[in-house]
Amino acid sequence: MIDSPAARLAALGIVLPAAAAPVANYVAAVRTGTLLVVSGQLPLVEGRLSASGKLGGGVTVEVGALAARFCMINLIAQLDAALGGLEKVRRVVRLGGFIACTPDFTQHATVMNGASDLAVAVFGDPGRHARSTVGVPSLPLDAPVEVEGLFEVDGF
Amino acid sequence: MIDSPAARLAALGIVLPAAAAPVANYVAAVRTGTLLVVSGQLPLVEGRLSASGKLGGGVTVEVGALAARFCMINLIAQLDAALGGLEKVRRVVRLGGFIACTPDFTQHATVMNGASDLAVAVFGDPGRHARSTVGVPSLPLDAPVEVEGLFEVDGF
Amino acid sequence: MIDSPAARLAALGIVLPAAAAPVANYVAAVRTGTLLVVSGQLPLVEGRLSASGKLGGGVTVEVGALAARFCMINLIAQLDAALGGLEKVRRVVRLGGFIACTPDFTQHATVMNGASDLAVAVFGDPGRHARSTVGVPSLPLDAPVEVEGLFEVDGF
Repeated sequence: MIDSPAARLAALGIVLPAAAAPVANYVAAVRTGTLLVVSGQLPLVEGRLSASGKLGGGVTVEVGALAARFCMINLIAQLDAALGGLEKVRRVVRLGGFIACTPDFTQHATVMNGASDLAVAVFGDPGRHARSTVGVPSLPLDAPVEVEGLFEVDGF
Repeated sequence: MIDSPAARLAALGIVLPAAAAPVANYVAAVRTGTLLVVSGQLPLVEGRLSASGKLGGGVTVEVGALAARFCMINLIAQLDAALGGLEKVRRVVRLGGFIACTPDFTQHATVMNGASDLAVAVFGDPGRHARSTVGVPSLPLDAPVEVEGLFEVDGF
Repeated sequence: MIDSPAARLAALGIVLPAAAAPVANYVAAVRTGTLLVVSGQLPLVEGRLSASGKLGGGVTVEVGALAARFCMINLIAQLDAALGGLEKVRRVVRLGGFIACTPDFTQHATVMNGASDLAVAVFGDPGRHARSTVGVPSLPLDAPVEVEGLFEVDGF
């Protein structure tokens, strides 16, 4: 039976990467009470961006949505590392999506669905989240997408 | 006597629209403890944007501020739908304003006041909020403004 | 012994400015439970921006990082004013960094380190925070950087 986030990840063929260490003087996740705030994640796959550039420029909506999915995988890896297991996630409260794009781009929501759809696929109903999605002119390392997360977690 | 958010809305001649359903795999609002996180709202009026384009481009500061006000109306509609009544709102904690604009635009604060002023007009002193306002190159559907909200609400 | 945020500020030669009043219908900080949300701060020094313009344009990474540091000083001033003392800060939970930049700029993280490094220098280990850093086309008043903060604070 597929009834846990870990089992759903496995059924999707996703192996969580090692949680990436921040490259500067900050941390990947901070818990306060039953909230866990996870830093903005880039679509890094084994240390490299899955794509670089901008939506409306050289990056297609499909490639952008895949990048958003990789951001979500990295958010889940950070959750797993911070909590010692995904079963402690009670709710995906909010995802914030930043889409690097040209001024005429309008399909931000479709790109961000790459992250949102995976959140629901992995966490089920508690994966349904509030969300804000906006365009940005550029992101660190020329990434096309960055996604940050707020989660409700079990007390300790 | 005007002493409730609903009465103040009526005095302002504002009829709350039906809360818009998200167009993708996310939800309009998530409650965690006494916090309610509401997804970024666009200035949709009966399913259409009140304006489209950018500040510093074809959208004037006045039209932008009106768009921000419509975003706030939609946030209030989401609050009302999520809580079953505005009297359960204890505090507008934070509004995040994203202003689609040209690189030379500098009057973000004036645009965002369209949302902030309405928050205070409807909720009174508890409507006074923390706020971050930034420019963005583009927003979903070519909207000129998007506003997200964080609210403190009564326990259930 | 340097074992308090106030002592560390003094050791760094930083005199906190008077907390700036918001220029519109919002407030600098809102507390909800043990969370304090502080509005986005600009790099204002005695009422003037430490720099204006964009990264990748006329503003160098060094000047941008210094601007981020001034934003952090202003966040700390707001904390001090809201709490009546920095010893009530339990944790810097999250910093959100908005970097006004050209579309080809990629060193957002280095700029934002100006804020993050000061947070850790002043608050020590509890100063280590989650963080999201993104580019924006423009900011209020043509500021190069804006930083917002979320803090865990003592109950009252």
